[in-house]
Amino acid sequence: MTSSRQLHLGAFMRPVSLHTGAWRYPGAFPDANFNFAHLKRFVQTLEAACFDAFFMADHLAVLNMPVDALKRSHTATSFEPFTLLSALAAVTERIGLVATASTTFDEPYHIARRFASLDHLSNGRAGWNLVTTSNPDAARNFGRDEHLEHDERYRRAREFYDVVTGLWDSWADDAFVRDVESGLYFDPEKLHVLAHKGEYLSVRGPLNIARPVQGWPVVVQAGSSEAGKQVAAETADVVFTAQSSLEAGKRFYGDVKERRERLGRPRNHLKILPGVFVVVGDSRSEAQDKRAKLDALVHYESGVSSLSIALGHDVSSFDPDGPLPEIPETNASRSSRERVIELARSEKLTVRQLAQRLGGYSGLQMIGTARDIADEMQQWLEEEGSDGFNVMFPFLPEGLDDFARKVVPELQRRGLFRRAYEGTTLRDHLGLPRPGNRFFKSP
Amino acid sequence: MTSSRQLHLGAFMRPVSLHTGAWRYPGAFPDANFNFAHLKRFVQTLEAACFDAFFMADHLAVLNMPVDALKRSHTATSFEPFTLLSALAAVTERIGLVATASTTFDEPYHIARRFASLDHLSNGRAGWNLVTTSNPDAARNFGRDEHLEHDERYRRAREFYDVVTGLWDSWADDAFVRDVESGLYFDPEKLHVLAHKGEYLSVRGPLNIARPVQGWPVVVQAGSSEAGKQVAAETADVVFTAQSSLEAGKRFYGDVKERRERLGRPRNHLKILPGVFVVVGDSRSEAQDKRAKLDALVHYESGVSSLSIALGHDVSSFDPDGPLPEIPETNASRSSRERVIELARSEKLTVRQLAQRLGGYSGLQMIGTARDIADEMQQWLEEEGSDGFNVMFPFLPEGLDDFARKVVPELQRRGLFRRAYEGTTLRDHLGLPRPGNRFFKSP
Repeated sequence: MTSSRQLHLGAFMRPVSLHTGAWRYPGAFPDANFNFAHLKRFVQTLEAACFDAFFMADHLAVLNMPVDALKRSHTATSFEPFTLLSALAAVTERIGLVATASTTFDEPYHIARRFASLDHLSNGRAGWNLVTTSNPDAARNFGRDEHLEHDERYRRAREFYDVVTGLWDSWADDAFVRDVESGLYFDPEKLHVLAHKGEYLSVRGPLNIARPVQGWPVVVQAGSSEAGKQVAAETADVVFTAQSSLEAGKRFYGDVKERRERLGRPRNHLKILPGVFVVVGDSRSEAQDKRAKLDALVHYESGVSSLSIALGHDVSSFDPDGPLPEIPETNASRSSRERVIELARSEKLTVRQLAQRLGGYSGLQMIGTARDIADEMQQWLEEEGSDGFNVMFPFLPEGLDDFARKVVPELQRRGLFRRAYEGTTLRDHLGLPRPGNRFFKSP
Repeated sequence: MTSSRQLHLGAFMRPVSLHTGAWRYPGAFPDANFNFAHLKRFVQTLEAACFDAFFMADHLAVLNMPVDALKRSHTATSFEPFTLLSALAAVTERIGLVATASTTFDEPYHIARRFASLDHLSNGRAGWNLVTTSNPDAARNFGRDEHLEHDERYRRAREFYDVVTGLWDSWADDAFVRDVESGLYFDPEKLHVLAHKGEYLSVRGPLNIARPVQGWPVVVQAGSSEAGKQVAAETADVVFTAQSSLEAGKRFYGDVKERRERLGRPRNHLKILPGVFVVVGDSRSEAQDKRAKLDALVHYESGVSSLSIALGHDVSSFDPDGPLPEIPETNASRSSRERVIELARSEKLTVRQLAQRLGGYSGLQMIGTARDIADEMQQWLEEEGSDGFNVMFPFLPEGLDDFARKVVPELQRRGLFRRAYEGTTLRDHLGLPRPGNRFFKSP
């Protein structure tokens, strides 16, 4: 063990990859959306590399894209998270398993129960990525024509969290005495009926499953609005965030950690993990070539649609092989528009290259040798830009295997990442305490 | 292969057993509610014995019992079915996996998606035990003070089933072309948007997962009311039923199969499996002794509460070691009351023994040697009382191991049960066809 701060690494995955061109990359498994054998291989590789957690992205609808873009991508469909992560729990021993579940389109009794069950099945490795679901197509799959407003979604989320954690505390940790001799299975004094009645939810309880192994499964959030950051500071164990640069990352990190401290709670009990897209090569140019090759696999139809959305302007009449022309002011978010224009300028991209970048992945990336990537990660850690990363692999299995075989050993050599799991639960891996039960003192 | 009719066997389980005294039985695993290792052992034993399916009983609340009875039983808590069965899918190859899900307290998009996901994870072994959930305590866990009326529950269930099967048909079986060369992942002509708007549900679709391996996962139902039997005849692949005798079983079997035929659908594409509690001994008296020993482990407090409910009369002042006194007419269901009085008379049970029987399990049972049990099962099959059974084991692991090692080989010797799985899916095991897609012709 080293005494210096350590990186925490999650793998942020879709079965084929988050990049829409990845299913066409050499060696890819285009059928991984429905082929469990591939997912099993991925998670076992991550576990051998001592990752903190496997993290499954999710949506409650077929993605909200024009069908001409959607039909080019593997991202329209996937396994459902609870079923997938439970199956992965049975074929792993240590790695954390984080599933996405919505506070807008599900019931707190179901959510509390499923995460408690996953936590018992996995001996304490469950995490809940708490999302409020902003996709209006999801609303239409759940009987709502109108989507809840942003602030209402967050108010409901806050109440939902209180109900779920209250249900997790239905039973004291030592409620189940199982005394065969006297015939007492549980001590009724150690059973709490929540009887919640609030603005959005009415839930009686108790939960029909014992308190989770971790007390509460790890709570992960990704809020970036003011309301989102505040809810995260109040409730999250881990914040997953999209940051475009180290400078932006440091501002976000300071802001959320400070909100936490103002609540009188230790800042190191909240871990901040920006998402980063990592492409590893034996040389920098090899890594850049891989990135270019991957982007070239994004079908132009699909990229044009993403670029048009980002700019708020139909780009289909532009010359694909020329530079991006001047774009008039539009209704698109100014920051997104400026970011795209700046990207085209700084990397001297043609319209086609820009479209393919946008149609694939255009957020924070680290591209280079294992040492380059370790340097960048170390800098983020040391300068308090993050507590680690949620790593996105560009294509599978190669991108994941490269990271596990090349980057992880380099981080280990520097004393920045574990060589073996020290604990057994996801809270152990993240250095987070086990929450007490709000209704019962610890045994 | 034999050409005669074959038995189908499901295992109807709670982790410790359905019998409330079972956790105190010698060799039991009282912690199986939260210990996956035990469940893995059970399901692997069932698979080695070629069972059609593992079937997990479920409730959406802590059981509706006085706490003085509840605290004596392991049945208050359990794993949640989707998470448990998905984990079991990862450690088995062939056995079917049937989970209970409620049409009253869940959303059709979630249910369709989770079963489709379990079906893909397990390569076609998922089954849905469609329940309407009559427990009023469940309603209070889902924001409802008043429970839906019986007929309304069934109308919603019928609509819910149409939506779920419609969502399963969102994609043609050959929709995913994954043509790396042209960059076409799916054929948009083979995607159907359900756009359902009905009396209870409004669901747009499409489902964000490919059509299940089985087309539709196997649908199991347990309706016994007129409405329930009719919904089962219209929609079920398997009917799980509680029958008290072969005579009653034959009436039920004939009734439901006839309803099916009146709908113009083949009677053998609906399998009827009564639940049966099986206690195996090397001699009849050994089996009877096991049953008596198990019942004696039901705490008297717990039995008294069950007996009082069944008779509609407080029996706590009765002499536990005397015979059942005359009971005045009450509001309890007359048939339940008469069944209990008849049970006490025919087996000459004391109040204590009767209470313990009621507090444990008092439905259809087969008790004796492997040959006795095979004789009874054979008679039910030959006289069209059933197509097989949903077997309940009195205590675990011994009761399950006895059945697998003694009864199954006897059934196999008689040519009544498979010696090896012939197909790979649960539909294959049950001899049920794969449903066509209502929106697309087969490829």
